[in-house]
Amino acid sequence: MRSFKLTIAYDGTAYQGWQSQPDKPTIQGSLERAFAKITGEEVRITGSGRTDAGVHALGQVASLDSETHLTPEVLQRALNHELPTDIVVVRLDEAQLGFHAIRDCTGKRYRYVIHDGPVPDLFRRLYYWHHRTRLDAGAMHRAAQGLLGMHDFRSFESQWPNRATSVRTIRDISVVRQPGEAADYLYVEVEADGFLYNMVRSIVGTLVEVGRGANGEAWPAEVVAAMDRGAAGRTAPAQGLFLMRVDYVE
Amino acid sequence: MRSFKLTIAYDGTAYQGWQSQPDKPTIQGSLERAFAKITGEEVRITGSGRTDAGVHALGQVASLDSETHLTPEVLQRALNHELPTDIVVVRLDEAQLGFHAIRDCTGKRYRYVIHDGPVPDLFRRLYYWHHRTRLDAGAMHRAAQGLLGMHDFRSFESQWPNRATSVRTIRDISVVRQPGEAADYLYVEVEADGFLYNMVRSIVGTLVEVGRGANGEAWPAEVVAAMDRGAAGRTAPAQGLFLMRVDYVE
Repeated sequence: MRSFKLTIAYDGTAYQGWQSQPDKPTIQGSLERAFAKITGEEVRITGSGRTDAGVHALGQVASLDSETHLTPEVLQRALNHELPTDIVVVRLDEAQLGFHAIRDCTGKRYRYVIHDGPVPDLFRRLYYWHHRTRLDAGAMHRAAQGLLGMHDFRSFESQWPNRATSVRTIRDISVVRQPGEAADYLYVEVEADGFLYNMVRSIVGTLVEVGRGANGEAWPAEVVAAMDRGAAGRTAPAQGLFLMRVDYVE
Repeated sequence: MRSFKLTIAYDGTAYQGWQSQPDKPTIQGSLERAFAKITGEEVRITGSGRTDAGVHALGQVASLDSETHLTPEVLQRALNHELPTDIVVVRLDEAQLGFHAIRDCTGKRYRYVIHDGPVPDLFRRLYYWHHRTRLDAGAMHRAAQGLLGMHDFRSFESQWPNRATSVRTIRDISVVRQPGEAADYLYVEVEADGFLYNMVRSIVGTLVEVGRGANGEAWPAEVVAAMDRGAAGRTAPAQGLFLMRVDYVE
């Protein structure tokens, strides 16, 4: 038996999220089908987490155990040949036996893309959330710093409780307007040891309330303290969200 | 009666080209329907040329005559509200009475985008032609200079003869590998007083033969001289082609 680590990018637009569902297009289902076609082996491919319908990834990580004798290079090429064009295995390595993408994960980084310019960016329109009026990125960034550190983030969790604990540690969070020609774009980046269901999207919805001036910069920290889902802003739409990176102990 | 000049961008992926066809999605059909919905007036919206199915535009120009009293600003906003998200009126001006997008056109510029890197660019995959092996952009650029100037371009015209003359003047043509992180992209740009059916796409198909080393740098000029469609390379796929600009006497 061998264990493999796959780093995967995908355009989530056409998929009902990561997790396999009967008769629905999913990332996991597509990967498992491609793997079975190549090796004849039906394996479970475990993602670091279940991205929702419409969420994208540049660096999702998944693990699998297999009896295959194929080299990582050959396996990667064969998978990319079998997979639809909106899923790409960007890296494939043999891992320590027993490597598990969920259990061994030490952190993740997400990016949420907002476009707040007057003219839509036609060829990127499926990959951002459009906001009609200009947002104050500086205010959003300062407000976001109130979420740094270890907190009970149940205010930002849809369908709480669905995990053993809603305590997580945000290690880095920033809101940056892009320079030059890309100045209609804001990137909200959040890195944490783990995320609750819809956590990034409800943080973004909350920060946008600050950015458009409806709430002050202290408000997001108050939302955390309230420990009440109803206190937060609305959940930002899936299509602006990208899983950028998943971290493991090397 | 007033005449208007519209500058239009679109993602051609979902359309059967510019020209209205019954029961098929087209750019012209979408624009005319949106205009009728706003003004109640059924007008013909004339594009500078008929882009093919799957071809994109950043600066297509169209003309229309109307009895409307709406200002250009209001009309533009209303059109963008009615249009699907993959068509955008980027500019709308009142023009001299009788302005006609085909008759008054003095030139056009197209860009053809090629990606020749090993890993596809997931979120741009619908907007380039992927070539599996690295192309020699310098050789393609030098070869392209053999097409500059006034020639009978029937070798690059699908279904010749379908115009009164196949003589056109290429004013500028270049093949440039993009700098830095975008180095997997080649842009082929062609500016001419007018274009024949499929002309840019068959020029690109021909230059790629030079870029992959199958033919020498002198070959494209020989293709022109042959005045024979069979002499040219294959027609590059529509999805890499962008109409960038249409020129008029100011």
